[in-house]
Amino acid sequence: MQVKPNIAAMRGYVPGEQPQSGTCIKLNTNENPYPCSPKVKAAIGRVCQTGLQKYPEPTAKDFRLRAAELLSSECPNITPDWILCGNGSDDLLTIITRAFVDAGDTVRFPLPSYVLYDTLAEIQGAVCDRVAFNADWTLPLEFSSDREGLKLAFLANPNSPSGTILPPVEVLRIATALPCPLVVDEAYVDFADESCLSLPSQNENVIVTRTMSKSYSLAGLRFGYAIAQPQVIEQLAKVKDSYNCDAISIAGATAAIDDRAWFDEMRSTILATRKRMLAALRELGFECVDSQANFVWCNHPEKPPGELYEQLKAAGILVRYMKYPDWGEGIRITAGTDEQVDSLLNQLESILG
Amino acid sequence: MQVKPNIAAMRGYVPGEQPQSGTCIKLNTNENPYPCSPKVKAAIGRVCQTGLQKYPEPTAKDFRLRAAELLSSECPNITPDWILCGNGSDDLLTIITRAFVDAGDTVRFPLPSYVLYDTLAEIQGAVCDRVAFNADWTLPLEFSSDREGLKLAFLANPNSPSGTILPPVEVLRIATALPCPLVVDEAYVDFADESCLSLPSQNENVIVTRTMSKSYSLAGLRFGYAIAQPQVIEQLAKVKDSYNCDAISIAGATAAIDDRAWFDEMRSTILATRKRMLAALRELGFECVDSQANFVWCNHPEKPPGELYEQLKAAGILVRYMKYPDWGEGIRITAGTDEQVDSLLNQLESILG
Repeated sequence: MQVKPNIAAMRGYVPGEQPQSGTCIKLNTNENPYPCSPKVKAAIGRVCQTGLQKYPEPTAKDFRLRAAELLSSECPNITPDWILCGNGSDDLLTIITRAFVDAGDTVRFPLPSYVLYDTLAEIQGAVCDRVAFNADWTLPLEFSSDREGLKLAFLANPNSPSGTILPPVEVLRIATALPCPLVVDEAYVDFADESCLSLPSQNENVIVTRTMSKSYSLAGLRFGYAIAQPQVIEQLAKVKDSYNCDAISIAGATAAIDDRAWFDEMRSTILATRKRMLAALRELGFECVDSQANFVWCNHPEKPPGELYEQLKAAGILVRYMKYPDWGEGIRITAGTDEQVDSLLNQLESILG
Repeated sequence: MQVKPNIAAMRGYVPGEQPQSGTCIKLNTNENPYPCSPKVKAAIGRVCQTGLQKYPEPTAKDFRLRAAELLSSECPNITPDWILCGNGSDDLLTIITRAFVDAGDTVRFPLPSYVLYDTLAEIQGAVCDRVAFNADWTLPLEFSSDREGLKLAFLANPNSPSGTILPPVEVLRIATALPCPLVVDEAYVDFADESCLSLPSQNENVIVTRTMSKSYSLAGLRFGYAIAQPQVIEQLAKVKDSYNCDAISIAGATAAIDDRAWFDEMRSTILATRKRMLAALRELGFECVDSQANFVWCNHPEKPPGELYEQLKAAGILVRYMKYPDWGEGIRITAGTDEQVDSLLNQLESILG
């Protein structure tokens, strides 16, 4: 049984730990600590009532209609045919990679960033061109330079694990300079001050992806969407599985984006917690990066992050320890509930004290 | 914006019509006309109660545990590490293609069969090697022959649109002769007299895929699984999206396979309807193939299938008209409820009479 050599050689993407017991404090995978809008449950109940025996609408039309309405208030061009829905934004990142990248091509992305970009390139048999961030979390000009065989670039914006963001004007400059499509992965954009939503209208090469996992508390439901010019969406749609979104996630995601009051309240709660957590971590001596996401990236000058991770884990608190070859390491802490963050801070105080 | 040339050249897979209004009689996409087990709804309700904010267990462990228990009664070797879960079996067919096939490689499958195999090969930039069935729906020896660059073979068994099946002993012969993995797509196997479940234990090259869409009435939920030797599953798992199955579909699918009484009742009802429909269609002069699936493939000697399809559609009855280049055409009719089948038969009588 011979899988492709690039697959055999891969280690495979290892997602953050997902203990199912529920007794630990989980600040490791940037989930929203609050429940989703109650309207989601009601919508799911209605789908169950109608029945699950029929295939879903293949293009998640209901979601696209409502999302286009909302997004067009920010960017008037956007209509439903600018939107492609996916089984989480990972599904969209996969679809995009398969549409543009052949074995031997090059995929560019920053270092450190979302490790899945490495995995997607490896599965495709492509070469990874990792461009290290500058010390101030800007990108060197090299990121937008031409290179033979370069077929796709990913930019998580806000970035993970740093939580930093490049302003839309800079992202547009990058997209314009690049000889290939640029995916602006906005998984965390709802926690940021600005977005790149208007960029696809200005440049055909920009594809913005978003997820319902974080700001809408729907990581368990798997729903994301991409925004690009219609002729781009049309090509990407050929690569998706026919029924990549199920009937329940379509209804749930549509109900979630529709409940603006719930979204706004959860968002501002998390932003307040992030601010407080950041200040408290600095108080404890951590070097933290200012965050535009629902997490904080930090290091303590006196304690290696791997040790901190282990000691917190032993105390029932999961954070994400990340080590990037040829770059460095640190811990990424999700902004949980205020109680969870208090437990974290108390524990850190006792570890460091 | 340059997608890969093979993507640009594709028409893209066109799934069967999915009218969302619900007023027509839908016998075109082999859905189960009956609702799923009520235990599915209860399980989904429990997930909603727990909340959707956390990522699902990445390997659908609960499902694999229960499925392994059930499958091992038929094939004792099977343990949870023989099972890979997917977002519908289409997700698994996609994963398998990406794991084994590079641009320029060859993918083999019968003609006529599931059209998605063509699409998956095209997306991957591979060559399609379509081997026509013999007149009696057996496969010529050519199907198991070696060929340079052959990296994967698909066999829908039971086949669609024919509803015919190759016996396991013949499938094992094919797998043994082939120089590459053989996917035995058992989407319809629950309506058949035998299955190839024991083959992966006998030959590392066999991967069996199954879906909850048809026999478990869960097309709207998107859940399928693959069965293969653990070292094969391990490689395939590297290619899947981290969270390809959502928390709701995992819980729903697990509840569905657990309710054996519901499954058995729905299955025998559909088999009885299929038998009656087949006899009545023959009575109306149709040439029908004996079916081991939840549909019947037929042609009428006096009426082109395209016309029949259009006239039925005008009367509010959807069947699947299929035309395969270099092969032929026909209509495929799903075994619906008895009332739906009566409406179909009445309509056909009036069209043909």
